[in-house]
Amino acid sequence: MTVAVTAPFDFAAYLEAARLQVEAALDASLGPERPESLREAMRYSLLAGGKRLRPILCLAACELAGGETALAMPTAVALEMVHTMSLIHDDLPAMDNDDLRRGRPTNHKVYGEANAILAGDALLTRAFEMVALRSPGVPAERLLAVVGELSLASGAPGLVGGQIVDLECEGKSVDLDTLEYIHLHKTGALLRACVLCGALIGGASESLLAALRTYARGIGLAFQIIDDILDVTASSEVLGKTAGKDLTADKTTYPKLLGLEESRRRADALVAEAKAALEPFAAADTAAGKAAPLLALADYITGRDR
Amino acid sequence: MTVAVTAPFDFAAYLEAARLQVEAALDASLGPERPESLREAMRYSLLAGGKRLRPILCLAACELAGGETALAMPTAVALEMVHTMSLIHDDLPAMDNDDLRRGRPTNHKVYGEANAILAGDALLTRAFEMVALRSPGVPAERLLAVVGELSLASGAPGLVGGQIVDLECEGKSVDLDTLEYIHLHKTGALLRACVLCGALIGGASESLLAALRTYARGIGLAFQIIDDILDVTASSEVLGKTAGKDLTADKTTYPKLLGLEESRRRADALVAEAKAALEPFAAADTAAGKAAPLLALADYITGRDR
Repeated sequence: MTVAVTAPFDFAAYLEAARLQVEAALDASLGPERPESLREAMRYSLLAGGKRLRPILCLAACELAGGETALAMPTAVALEMVHTMSLIHDDLPAMDNDDLRRGRPTNHKVYGEANAILAGDALLTRAFEMVALRSPGVPAERLLAVVGELSLASGAPGLVGGQIVDLECEGKSVDLDTLEYIHLHKTGALLRACVLCGALIGGASESLLAALRTYARGIGLAFQIIDDILDVTASSEVLGKTAGKDLTADKTTYPKLLGLEESRRRADALVAEAKAALEPFAAADTAAGKAAPLLALADYITGRDR
Repeated sequence: MTVAVTAPFDFAAYLEAARLQVEAALDASLGPERPESLREAMRYSLLAGGKRLRPILCLAACELAGGETALAMPTAVALEMVHTMSLIHDDLPAMDNDDLRRGRPTNHKVYGEANAILAGDALLTRAFEMVALRSPGVPAERLLAVVGELSLASGAPGLVGGQIVDLECEGKSVDLDTLEYIHLHKTGALLRACVLCGALIGGASESLLAALRTYARGIGLAFQIIDDILDVTASSEVLGKTAGKDLTADKTTYPKLLGLEESRRRADALVAEAKAALEPFAAADTAAGKAAPLLALADYITGRDR
């Protein structure tokens, strides 16, 4: 299993090929098992489609580090599991109370609250199982480092922390620092883990890891700014989730603090920063092709329509 | 940090010394961090007292395997975090809807549902962080195996699976096989992980691991049978949680299926089996003292008053 990179780089083909590989791996990750009802609730949300940006970032980072993408696939699946778990729990009535996700009823609307909470818990633990027990061929030291990154990104220092502060700030006006804190944790931490975990499995050097941290921070914040912009400008139909929700909930967003124009400008600047961090690795002729996916992904994120 | 074993073995002193060490480690595991509100909700439940049987089982198994108990302490803490997380989520209104736990209001009664769900998620991820990033001095291969055991015990193949089947069976009469399935998963899986993780860190042989699996199955089921018996016979005051709840909820229990007498007999037989499995390791003169804690713990579990 490899994602062929040819010159000139055909990003659309790359994205589609990678997405299909990820879908197949996600499907295989939840095979027949007892209890059937739990498996069904887990599959419902994990296989609900989407761009699969997180697993693809992981595979692309592994490739840039010189690793075989197949070795990173179980971790790519794990990252999508953590993402899915956070969506299931965030949608719960006690949290954002959302009925619609990716154009379909949210997990708790279909399976009930108890099953949704437990399906989330099970996806979170399965993520660690994917890394620890279902990642053949990767040295234990690298997998343990991946477990570390994954745990930091998923928990209090990452997306749980971000969600808590986000909930606390609902209905209050917050400053730019707090907004950035929320996004760097709620969204950014996992995106960062995606590229770091992929790179760790690929055997990345310290200098590449440092560059990828800068890259991840840039695309993570840009991603969230674009999300805020889309919430204002796009319809529910295009988004596949309830649009205008941030405005209804009186949430502070980048457009609200900075205006649409400045928000867009800032997202572009962050993407430029992200790409610049990878330049040293793209410039070396051996690595040129290998950096192409991450460079294109950075652009893609600010141009995405959903 | 060692738990001194002297002959004749003073179990009460051992238990108290180990408990105090565990309490200190639990306290240290959640230091100052942002967001403060999340940390508070995590600490509220993690430091709510209790016998700390799970971490002590882990330390005792590490010792039996010939390991230094200090090396197993971060994993012992991780196991208590997973246990605490499962209590927080099980107590939620959408699940068992319990207001009282260890004599105090449950987490969601104090911090609200959203914070309780997230505190559970954060404890679960922190558990993996404890193993992967806060366990100095243990080889990566062993820690990765611990992550594997912990993920299996915490998720769909373990306590989440058990909780799902338990919820599905509420109000229905279930047979002994299903009741055993529920208990082996909801309670047994984590107890099993406790002894296996401790033993893995201590560098246990395959034969010791096999014996510990038998031991864990025995004490796991016995533990739950006793829990069922206590729910019938003890008062809320002694239990520190709502007593008679199983009867009220029309839950199938061992006493209901087998009667109190036969339930007690079965628990005793399981404990005898558990102890017999460790006999080869207790018999060798070098290991005699080292098996004493696990042997005494097996007895203690059936004699416990809460």
